[in-house]
Parts: sequence; structure tokens; C-alpha cells
Amino acid sequence: MNMRIEQLVAYMDRQAIDAVLITMPKHVYYLTGFASDPHERFLGLLIPRGSEPLLIVPALDFEAAQAASSVKEIHTHTDTDNPYQVLSKLMPEGIRTLGLEKDYMTVSRFEAISQAVGAAHYADIDEPLREMRVIKTPDEVLRMKHAVRIIEDVLRAGIAQVKPGVTEIELVAELEYQMKKLGASGPSFSTMVLAGEKSAMPHGVPGSRAIREGELLLFDLGVYADGYASDITRTFAVGDISEEQTKIYQTVLQANLQAIEATRPGATLASLDHAAREHITSAGYGPYFMHRLGHGLGMDVHEYPSVHGQNQELLRSGMVFTIEPGIYVPGVGGVRIEDDVLVTDSGVEVLTSFPKELTVIG
Amino acid sequence: MNMRIEQLVAYMDRQAIDAVLITMPKHVYYLTGFASDPHERFLGLLIPRGSEPLLIVPALDFEAAQAASSVKEIHTHTDTDNPYQVLSKLMPEGIRTLGLEKDYMTVSRFEAISQAVGAAHYADIDEPLREMRVIKTPDEVLRMKHAVRIIEDVLRAGIAQVKPGVTEIELVAELEYQMKKLGASGPSFSTMVLAGEKSAMPHGVPGSRAIREGELLLFDLGVYADGYASDITRTFAVGDISEEQTKIYQTVLQANLQAIEATRPGATLASLDHAAREHITSAGYGPYFMHRLGHGLGMDVHEYPSVHGQNQELLRSGMVFTIEPGIYVPGVGGVRIEDDVLVTDSGVEVLTSFPKELTVIG
Repeated sequence: MNMRIEQLVAYMDRQAIDAVLITMPKHVYYLTGFASDPHERFLGLLIPRGSEPLLIVPALDFEAAQAASSVKEIHTHTDTDNPYQVLSKLMPEGIRTLGLEKDYMTVSRFEAISQAVGAAHYADIDEPLREMRVIKTPDEVLRMKHAVRIIEDVLRAGIAQVKPGVTEIELVAELEYQMKKLGASGPSFSTMVLAGEKSAMPHGVPGSRAIREGELLLFDLGVYADGYASDITRTFAVGDISEEQTKIYQTVLQANLQAIEATRPGATLASLDHAAREHITSAGYGPYFMHRLGHGLGMDVHEYPSVHGQNQELLRSGMVFTIEPGIYVPGVGGVRIEDDVLVTDSGVEVLTSFPKELTVIG
Repeated sequence: MNMRIEQLVAYMDRQAIDAVLITMPKHVYYLTGFASDPHERFLGLLIPRGSEPLLIVPALDFEAAQAASSVKEIHTHTDTDNPYQVLSKLMPEGIRTLGLEKDYMTVSRFEAISQAVGAAHYADIDEPLREMRVIKTPDEVLRMKHAVRIIEDVLRAGIAQVKPGVTEIELVAELEYQMKKLGASGPSFSTMVLAGEKSAMPHGVPGSRAIREGELLLFDLGVYADGYASDITRTFAVGDISEEQTKIYQTVLQANLQAIEATRPGATLASLDHAAREHITSAGYGPYFMHRLGHGLGMDVHEYPSVHGQNQELLRSGMVFTIEPGIYVPGVGGVRIEDDVLVTDSGVEVLTSFPKELTVIG
């Protein structure tokens, strides 16, 4: 049994859960190393307390599972089998409480499983999985650094194409092409390139608008690579920008740096948001920073923890999240500067290294 | 009440379902005209038998819902409300059986709803919704024609960029850029451009491989526009191709045409698959056509009906699905020709009109 499964079994012991059935492909990957997309077919990792875990996979995935999974007992079902009967036969006798991912599993599947298994109780195991995932292992950090390296190369290639006249969606196309070329499995969210007045819309959608001299140009982009996400935002000046735009930029940059400065084990997540927000507020832009400071990052591009002003949870070594303050002034433009950071034993390691000084491009 | 909600109410009458709660955003759109992406927030359309339907939306979506929804009683909840309490207050007294989308709803949400509502029974309403969706209205057909028109313009722009040396992923980037430019909300699935030996892999992934003279080049692509999907495949010759490649092409084209010829109300779905498969088998390529003939198309790019050799269901006027026979010979190349077709009262209307004769490009 690997360490992650052992952690889950320790939780099962504490909660008197007799067996856990994992069906979310990301969690199967996390716990066994076997990545797959079973579509509507049944994929399950069964972890009974007191005996060895086992995998149930569609027959056509057997070889792939055998090659990648650290769980070596692998059972299969074909398209004409009832996978819940396969599950029922493999389930140990006398299961009273079965743990399931209730935030993920559909009611239809739950009904099929409860009919096949007939446990008295079904416990939710989303929370222990979330707790495990929030602390990244060195191996996970390496994968995330790889995803960061790709996205920074993508961004570098993208800004080389910026000149007045080019459109937001042309730049998105170039960036997403570079993602594929550099080996990402895909964007980790809808790539955002927003120019001028649109940069002031935190949820703007790139369009056919040509980029002009004298405006701010905001890039927010990320990739999935090897199962892990990166996420970075940089804002540039296209030619000369105004004094106010420059002031906004420098204010966001300082807010970003102060939040990073505040990042260390034992600090509250709220304190990071406060550090950034106080600086922005004291510069007079408080009402124009209308979102949380950041979000956890890992196998999902948005995961735990949430970095907002009410989150009194303490930072722990191994947490990875974004720090992305922004100021959005209608008619003037928006700036956001986003880094991915890792909490270390002694403080913080900033995973993103793309320069942050105000840079003129185009 | 609009016609679709009336159809659902008729089903509720037959099945003695006292109320239905719809939470899938696509189904809310289908039944009310209000399209939204509520993310993790609660969105619900409550249809009680015997009283007027009502919508429950996140407060920030109220104006959008009011503007778009044909259901005019709209209630809201804010991020600090418990949406299930809002639901509980709006639920009529004495609900014994509540209908839910069990293939979509998670166990967590179901537990919250059943606690708030306390019905004795929860019925699955996926099937009547599927049944309704499988027959397209004239308005839906118009939207699908629009999505087809966009994808054909995209394909036309894409093949203009083909020349030896250009790579598969460069063409994907160009195609997806054109999708955005022409007003699609996005690709309806991962755009596929496969050259040479890769065209023989039905699930190949585009890569950095340059296109060469004398090979087959397969494009499979689609968009979502206005909530509806299109999906088309065309295969081209880059320069001169071999006699066998030409034979494969003509065989697939004939199979495509014969399946379309067989499409009319009252025929079985299986008979279409057979028509195409018999032609391919008689040409000696039976083992190289290893997938079903097609799939339903609508608000999802893969939906009911499934066009395969065992489906004895009868075609009905208003069904829309793909017809996409293919032959994939390792070392020689693959050809697939895919059209989107509508079953009409008298036969068939082919929604895709992109030319299908063997065309040399590049």
C-alpha cells in the first residue's frame, strides 16, 4: 500500500468506515498513479479496511492500468458485464459503512452501488481527500513546476506576437497552439487576453478587437501537464501608457509582493488577502479590487484552499495557491499580477518566475 | 407554460410525480430559454403538478433570468442563503414523489434536497427529458443549421492553410481561431486534424508532425453555437494519393451515401449502420470499420439516439444524428466522412453541405 492509501486507511480507522470506493478518475490517479478517462464506463478503486486495495477497470484499460497502477490487484469488466455485480462480488462480507465521493458521484450510480452492496451507511470521503490533496508532495511540486515552465514559455512566445492591430483572439490562438506544441495536455481554463477597456473586466471574454498603442494588455493563462495545473497572469503596456495606468500597475505589483512576503507557515490565509488589500486600499483603489486574493492549485486549477479575507485557516508547508491581486478601473484599464506559490518549511517559494516589472511590448 | 414544460407535466401526470426539480443548466435552458453557468451555485426549475413552474437562481443572475426565461416567477438566493431552505419554502405541501435528474445530480446535493423536501420517493426524470430532446423542434433545427454553417466556414478557412510542412497542431490552432472569429462559443469536442498514418487512428491526437505530399488528411471538428452542436468530418488528399487510398475514399463515400439513402421515418437505426457496413464489408474493409455509424446531436455533441447495428429503435421525424462511416488501414491511412442529418416527414435532410468528392488540397 502506498502512503496516500495508508493515509486514507488511517482516516477509515478513525471514522469506522469499513471500505472506501473511489470512482473519480483524478482520485484514482492520485491514489494509484493510473490516469484514465473511462467516459461513462465504471472505474473504481476499492479500499477495504484490513485487506488489500483493488482496482476495477474497463477491460480495454487493463494493460494501461497494469503498467501504471501501484495497486496491483486489477479486475476488469466488459461492456456487456454489469460492473456493479463485479463490484458486489469483490466487496468483502459485512460492510456496514462504505465511504464514497458524494460531491462527485451521481444519484443514478449511487443507487446502483447501494443496491449491489447494501451497506447500512454511506459516508462522505470528500473531506479527507481534500485534506490530503491540499499538502503537495515533492513529486507533485515537481509536476507543478513543469506545468509552470510550460506556461511561461507559452507566454514568452505569445507576447512576441503582440503589435498594434493584432486581435485578442489571434493571441489566444497563438498561445493555445504553443501550449500543445510545448507538450501540455491542454489549457487549464479558458485562455484570457484582454486589451484596453476590456482588461478592466475580471471576467471578460477575448474578442476580435485589435490591440492599440497606449493600452494595458492582460494575459491570464495556464495548462495541465502530467495531471497538474499552472495558472499565471501578467499585464503589459502596449507602447506608452498614462500616469494613472502606471500607478495602477505599481500598486498591484506592490500588493502582489507584500502578499508573497506575508506567506509562511502559521500565517492565516486571510492575512495574505489583507496584506494585498491594505496596500491597494491605501493607494485609493480598494473598491476596484473586487475578488479574493487567490485559490489553491494542484490537480484542479481551482481547489482548496481559498485565499480570501475570511479564511482563518493556517498556512502549512506544502500548500500551493495563487496570489493574484488586481485593480480594474472602468475606462482606464485593469492590471492583475498572478503568481503560483508554494508554502515551504521556512517561508515561501514562488513557482512562477516570469518578470513582473512593468514591461512595454508591441 | 410552454409546450416543453407541458410535455413534462403530462409525463408527471402519467407517472404520479407530484413535482419535478430540474438543476442541469442545459435542461433549464431547454425548458425556459434561460442559459447560464451557475458553477457551484444552486440553480433550480421547480415544476409542481397543478401549479405554475418557478425558477430559483443565484441573486446575481436575476436580471439575466428575467430577460430570458419564459418561466416568469423567479426567486433568488444569495451566497449567504441556504438555497435548499429557499427551495423548501417554495415546495408545495404534501409532495410524495419528486422527480430529479439522477444521471446528473450528485449524492451531496441529493442529500441536501431530500433533507429539505422530505419526499417519500424520488423518481428519475432523465428518460422523459431524453425522449423530448431526441425530437428537434424547427427552432432547434435552425440553431443546428447555424452551428453547421459556422463549422463549414471554419473548415473552408482551415484547408486553405494546408500545404506540405504545416503541422497538425498548427491547423488545429487555425481552426479553433476561426471558430471564435466566426462567433461560435467554442469547439464541441477536441478538434482533430490527423495526417498520414495517424489518420488511421480513430482516436488519434494531433501532434507536431508535418503534413506530407501523398497522404490522407482527416479533419473532424464541430462547434457549439447558441447552445447547439455541429460535428463534421472530411478527409482530403494532399497531392497525389495511391490507388488503395483512393479506393478506400470511394468506398467510405459510397457507404456514407447509402446510409443517408436509407434514412427515413420508420427505418430502424440499425438498418442505417447495416447499409454502410455492408458496402464497406463487400469492398473487403469490414474489419477496418470498427465503430458505430453515428450518434445523436443536439444540445450535446453526443446524445441519443445511438446509431449502431443493434439499435432496433425506429427513426422518427425530427431526430438529428451523425452518419460517419470510416475505414482505417494501418500503414495506408484512414478516411471518415461525417454528415449531420435530420429525419424529415418524407425522408432526410442533410444539414452539412460541404462537398464530399475526393478533393486534392495543399
